[in-house]
Amino acid sequence: MRDAMLYKSSLHASLADPVLDTMNFLNEVTMRYPDAISFAPGRPYDGFFDTGHIFAHLHRYLDHLAEQGQSPQQIRTAMYQYGPTAGQIRDLIADSVRVDERIDVTPESIVVTVGAQESMLLTLRALMSGPDDVLMVSTPCYVGITGAARLLDIPVVDVEEPPDGFSCADFEAAILRERARGRNPRAFYVVPDHSNPSGTTLSQRARTELLELAGRHGVLILEDSPYRLVSPETPLPTLKSQDTDGVVVHLGSYSKTLFPGARIGYVIADQQIVDANGQITLLADELAKIKSMITVNTSSLSQAVVAGALLATGGRMSELNARPASYYGDAMRATLRRLDRRLPPGLRAELGVRWNSPTGGFFLNVQVSFDSDEDALTRSARNHGVIWTPMRYFYPSGGGHRTMRLSISYLTPIEIDEGIDRLATFIESETRRRPD
Amino acid sequence: MRDAMLYKSSLHASLADPVLDTMNFLNEVTMRYPDAISFAPGRPYDGFFDTGHIFAHLHRYLDHLAEQGQSPQQIRTAMYQYGPTAGQIRDLIADSVRVDERIDVTPESIVVTVGAQESMLLTLRALMSGPDDVLMVSTPCYVGITGAARLLDIPVVDVEEPPDGFSCADFEAAILRERARGRNPRAFYVVPDHSNPSGTTLSQRARTELLELAGRHGVLILEDSPYRLVSPETPLPTLKSQDTDGVVVHLGSYSKTLFPGARIGYVIADQQIVDANGQITLLADELAKIKSMITVNTSSLSQAVVAGALLATGGRMSELNARPASYYGDAMRATLRRLDRRLPPGLRAELGVRWNSPTGGFFLNVQVSFDSDEDALTRSARNHGVIWTPMRYFYPSGGGHRTMRLSISYLTPIEIDEGIDRLATFIESETRRRPD
Repeated sequence: MRDAMLYKSSLHASLADPVLDTMNFLNEVTMRYPDAISFAPGRPYDGFFDTGHIFAHLHRYLDHLAEQGQSPQQIRTAMYQYGPTAGQIRDLIADSVRVDERIDVTPESIVVTVGAQESMLLTLRALMSGPDDVLMVSTPCYVGITGAARLLDIPVVDVEEPPDGFSCADFEAAILRERARGRNPRAFYVVPDHSNPSGTTLSQRARTELLELAGRHGVLILEDSPYRLVSPETPLPTLKSQDTDGVVVHLGSYSKTLFPGARIGYVIADQQIVDANGQITLLADELAKIKSMITVNTSSLSQAVVAGALLATGGRMSELNARPASYYGDAMRATLRRLDRRLPPGLRAELGVRWNSPTGGFFLNVQVSFDSDEDALTRSARNHGVIWTPMRYFYPSGGGHRTMRLSISYLTPIEIDEGIDRLATFIESETRRRPD
Repeated sequence: MRDAMLYKSSLHASLADPVLDTMNFLNEVTMRYPDAISFAPGRPYDGFFDTGHIFAHLHRYLDHLAEQGQSPQQIRTAMYQYGPTAGQIRDLIADSVRVDERIDVTPESIVVTVGAQESMLLTLRALMSGPDDVLMVSTPCYVGITGAARLLDIPVVDVEEPPDGFSCADFEAAILRERARGRNPRAFYVVPDHSNPSGTTLSQRARTELLELAGRHGVLILEDSPYRLVSPETPLPTLKSQDTDGVVVHLGSYSKTLFPGARIGYVIADQQIVDANGQITLLADELAKIKSMITVNTSSLSQAVVAGALLATGGRMSELNARPASYYGDAMRATLRRLDRRLPPGLRAELGVRWNSPTGGFFLNVQVSFDSDEDALTRSARNHGVIWTPMRYFYPSGGGHRTMRLSISYLTPIEIDEGIDRLATFIESETRRRPD
């Protein structure tokens, strides 16, 4: 068949976004230099995976359904047929977030989604209804949420995080500034624990103040926190567990705590919605309606495998992740130790290099004195065999021009040491290099 | 935690759509009258399902990867990690549509999606870029496509199907009318074979003319045809297999041919896209970029199970579906036979009842002389123990007020006979009933 020709300019604007091209560029560099050590992908470590576990989880869930008194016919229906739009394992997820996160909600407040990405899309679609509605994001910002906003033509307002950590005063100032412009900030997206991409964590004081400000100004908080249970220390309480005003929508993911291939996430949305007739629903009910127009329901196979894993530890994802969390903690410390050894304080000052020291999560940031752009990345991969992510990808309105994101999650200890050595050599070479 | 109160009027307009409430009503009636025989759900028949097959399919796909020379580490990665956004079983799907549907495309032209619903959303989002872009649909119309359009605030234009079948003249007239209004009809959605909800099939002559008109007017055709391989007769060739002008985007689904719970669909989009620099991509590449903002990638578990089923028959879904197709054919014939027996020509004329006689698919339509509204449905369920779907749900701009959709796919032969008897009694009672 003959191929028709369409103009890209006739396609939706989200496809012209430079972030897509830059992500593409990163993939190309990775493929072009396969021997380079890559600090780019935010993937979980492979070493704990075993395909046998998939079968064990599936069997455990099927046994569980039988123990609950379901007939073989009912179990077939649960596995094979269209399932409930909001998900079939909501009760197990509700139990799990209660024991792990002290989030106490009914199963009806939860919608199971195809990863946290679909949760973001559902939530943005439900909340952003008029031309003046805007999404606020803590910047630097995860590209998943800004991508979902672009897809729905929703304006995004940055609340830039200062070097010493998130500022509630800046958050409030941004709300007031937008209101003064006639716009309506409906929600604020934040990763409170070991953020992607910056690695930073909100203090308890910032959490309390953020919740108070959100309640006072009627702005919902979209809390996305996938790195909590894969980090070595006991995390601060979630925003949702402290949500006395009902201002937090909590986005959950099993991509880091179980495995990404399952594509299972969830959203906790227990806010009450009242219609013109005084009828009350939950925000979760409304999100499920939107889900029916996006994916209808989430794969029953994936839900079954996640359910089997939850059943194995009574919902304690924290327990299931004790070993990975310790592994990632070691990897982060090894990275920081090697950076310190290869770039000791004197040399660091001379080169104009700094980095932050997260206590968990997958990411840290390295600031340098040269442009960490795509040309620099190409030289880094080609001449030094090391790959990182330019932080500018995470600034929707510009920024991050001299910062790299390093991900420590996917590498072995040997790769980390060798990778940091290569990175240090690259930074030295780049800092001392004459301009082209 | 305290529940905040939000107004439904502040949520997105798609949530105020009456179709959602009516679908909800249908679910409620079904739950309220559990002993009623329901001709409502368009679900596949349960009887062929066996949970053991899931494990067999998974094992077959894992063995296949090993036979292809993949290491245990690579297989773990394929099952556990984030996968390619466009899907990991595109080669198997390309092989399958070649043998089953004479659609000859490269794997790169395919994006694996979370059911056909996500394919619809991707395609609409990519193509509808400006305020004047409109989607045309053959009406009565499947609610999945109109739902996706509402979600993206895309205007929908009906091309109403006359009682004697789809009219290409009406299609062209609608294009010209929209253009004259300053609007840009970008795509036309149609189910060419045994349509949901009307059960009608496009003739080969209509297919040829539709393709010619679409090419001439530069309107893409979104071909959605999930009932072809679960129907007893050899179907007419797909529009895509006759697509010499590259105007067809083909939406595929395994929900009917394998099982809905997997949530696996695909879209074939081999159209070339040229950007301002003359760079060429495929529409499938652009759809994958949009998918990265919706679900990131499709469950690797679900893809593996579908792949295992495809491998079992060398991709011949038609072969795998020989038994179900024959079962559904029998069910349709049994339904038509019983209707004819219970409502013979004389009585039919007296009551003002007519129905169409599809040769395949899951659906047929029954026209009556009274309003087939929700009150009538409630009486039907309560007094006669039989449930059907009001056809008005499938007319975005109004219509279908005296027609019911019957689905024959989910019932046993005994249920069909008993259900049609009840339906005939209901129709008699309703036709002779005095107005309230």
